[in-house]
Amino acid sequence: MNLLQFRSLAEKIFADVRELTFDGVGVTRASYGEGEAAAADYLRQLALSEGLEVYADRAANLIFRRPTSEPDAPVIWVGSHMDSVPQGGNYDGLAGVTAGLLCLIARQREGRTDALPLEVVGFRGEESAWFGKAYVGSSALFGKLSDADLALPQRVSGAPLSEYMEKAGADMDAVRAQEVLVNKDRIKAYLEVHIEQGPVMVARSLPLAVVSGIRGNFRHNHVVCVGDAQHSGVVPRWLRHDSMFAVADLIMRLDEHWRVLLERGTDLVVTAGVVNTDPAEHSISRIPGRVNFSIEARSKSTDTLEAFYQLMRAECTAISRERGVRFEFDRRVLSDPATMDEDVCKVLSGACAAQGIPFEVIPSGAGHDASLFANAGIPSGMLFVRNQNGSHNPREAMEIEDFMLGVQVLSDSLDELPQTKALVAG
Amino acid sequence: MNLLQFRSLAEKIFADVRELTFDGVGVTRASYGEGEAAAADYLRQLALSEGLEVYADRAANLIFRRPTSEPDAPVIWVGSHMDSVPQGGNYDGLAGVTAGLLCLIARQREGRTDALPLEVVGFRGEESAWFGKAYVGSSALFGKLSDADLALPQRVSGAPLSEYMEKAGADMDAVRAQEVLVNKDRIKAYLEVHIEQGPVMVARSLPLAVVSGIRGNFRHNHVVCVGDAQHSGVVPRWLRHDSMFAVADLIMRLDEHWRVLLERGTDLVVTAGVVNTDPAEHSISRIPGRVNFSIEARSKSTDTLEAFYQLMRAECTAISRERGVRFEFDRRVLSDPATMDEDVCKVLSGACAAQGIPFEVIPSGAGHDASLFANAGIPSGMLFVRNQNGSHNPREAMEIEDFMLGVQVLSDSLDELPQTKALVAG
Repeated sequence: MNLLQFRSLAEKIFADVRELTFDGVGVTRASYGEGEAAAADYLRQLALSEGLEVYADRAANLIFRRPTSEPDAPVIWVGSHMDSVPQGGNYDGLAGVTAGLLCLIARQREGRTDALPLEVVGFRGEESAWFGKAYVGSSALFGKLSDADLALPQRVSGAPLSEYMEKAGADMDAVRAQEVLVNKDRIKAYLEVHIEQGPVMVARSLPLAVVSGIRGNFRHNHVVCVGDAQHSGVVPRWLRHDSMFAVADLIMRLDEHWRVLLERGTDLVVTAGVVNTDPAEHSISRIPGRVNFSIEARSKSTDTLEAFYQLMRAECTAISRERGVRFEFDRRVLSDPATMDEDVCKVLSGACAAQGIPFEVIPSGAGHDASLFANAGIPSGMLFVRNQNGSHNPREAMEIEDFMLGVQVLSDSLDELPQTKALVAG
Repeated sequence: MNLLQFRSLAEKIFADVRELTFDGVGVTRASYGEGEAAAADYLRQLALSEGLEVYADRAANLIFRRPTSEPDAPVIWVGSHMDSVPQGGNYDGLAGVTAGLLCLIARQREGRTDALPLEVVGFRGEESAWFGKAYVGSSALFGKLSDADLALPQRVSGAPLSEYMEKAGADMDAVRAQEVLVNKDRIKAYLEVHIEQGPVMVARSLPLAVVSGIRGNFRHNHVVCVGDAQHSGVVPRWLRHDSMFAVADLIMRLDEHWRVLLERGTDLVVTAGVVNTDPAEHSISRIPGRVNFSIEARSKSTDTLEAFYQLMRAECTAISRERGVRFEFDRRVLSDPATMDEDVCKVLSGACAAQGIPFEVIPSGAGHDASLFANAGIPSGMLFVRNQNGSHNPREAMEIEDFMLGVQVLSDSLDELPQTKALVAG
């Protein structure tokens, strides 16, 4: 099947959804909010106009499929998410849903019968920017949201996640009971196309890449370091309890551990994305009495994450003792690392090679809904499309030519997967 | 003269001015703003009701004196400031002006002739919290405000200092021309009573202390560290330009230099009072691209301040190179250290000793208007009154008994100073 003919439809989808969700700077599609709903409605209308079926699952994610007399037959799922960060880029999430939809529309128009039919899923709530937790929609699907998760406050309104999910139509009794809301055995494979969010593919001139695995992470969204606010000129060094010096000390100790771990070949990145002296009391001539900060580490290895977490807490204890401060931690939020299925990766790589497209197999530093499927035992694979300027910003810049290569490889892989013995056996 | 009889008047002044400038949490007397004006008006009315003269000098500070036929005769000045930080304490500044006024009222009621008459000054604009520069009122008096100082924006409105000073009645042509607005030769000595802003006197059970000298400082109110904002999961360590790690690195390098300098006996304190990742773009899962911060160092030694400043800039250069970030500095604001006059200190110490009051001679970590007088060559001295819980917060707690001891020692010193040969000769 030649998917390259769908280029103008792809361009139209990107332009229309961008216009619907443009915020003056970038696009804003709040998880379980307005922009996400606008994107979902647009995609639903488009699918219906092509003669496809669209329904919401019990977690309020959208499922797109061809009309069928065997709704419970085995399928392949292709998906990604419909939300974005505030003032984000147009392709993060939307590119993957669009890639799946184009494959589905091509099959519908052709009226072809597939060995394993395709279903496309548009997830809600993938971006952690809104509730401090990532992959909400796919987590709900697999019964992975705890009461604490459901109580997380929205970044602007402060209202809990559960309220937003309910408004979007999720079956909250089932979500709260942590039911698995999908028949996992039906889904023979999960594929996801996504823009690369890092700089590797641009640097190496690769239009596509096959993802080997997805980093997990631990996070504390809100840590407070409490010291003693005093006039900056009058308290000698040994009587100071400077919370900012304490946080700087913590960051530099973690930086040093990180450097040593990298030298041993460990996979790890560490970020303190939000750091603030308390605006209610800070001043140029005052020793900071409170610093609020976030801390995050990511690794392909669960062991590395756990070890680094314990190291971090041990350093906090040492700094508390040495500097007379204390650290107050909120709940730790964990996302498990995930490994992509070897056979699925082979199919994706084979499809790239058959098209003569330069590609490599690389790990994903960012998290994706695909990790939930992989960790649920469903053979999963991801395809990255080259993208300039990173993601989570309005300057992200995927070339439509690269995207269409991704759609072609996705379609070819969908054709190839039912021939893969391991999958059919599973 | 027995000043202890003025205790109820002192209590009334503190209670009345507190009520006039209470903000719901502490007192707010904005420099050249509403609360400062309310305090000034109250003190003016009080002085007039006691038969004193009150006039504003050309920098809009208030001068209180007894009616005199020799307005240009030599005098002793006693002063402090009328403004406060936002949500500050009632005694920081006001205690010193009140102490001077009580001495002046006592002399007026008694009708006594002094060898060197007393004039009391209530300064405006001492707190750097409002315009990012301290001692504005006394600096204006000595022709020390530059065009850059006068352009400093008010923390809330953003309007320049010059506009505020003009509204308060200052002669802005003279201020801009950096004229010295006072006849320095007339002022034979300058005395200032102030609450201690640190913890030393409480710890040592000293109701009073004589100040040996005042720390100077350098400040940058607004430094920006610019890195590269990217998704936290996808950029490996060697490609990161993390502005928060860079600022933490700077703080820890300064901490280490500070520690080493203290071991060599150097006088120094270092503070980064305000540190913020950029709220317009920061996120838990984003490498911080911009950190805004302030940096301040204080020392009794000009050489130490200059050496530490150069060290700080050198470390910024090294960090910029190592971490691929850049530091953007606003104008450096300097306050010179000052040494109190030895003879004046002897007089203050003698007066404490004669009253049997436990006292010590200690340095001032905080800056005071007195440093402008000392550095203008006017013999100057300061008396600290014990104070709980530091200053620049609503919990500051001076005992009225301690304050009255300070007023008594101030009055006794005013009687003694004209007998001091060095002063009369000067």
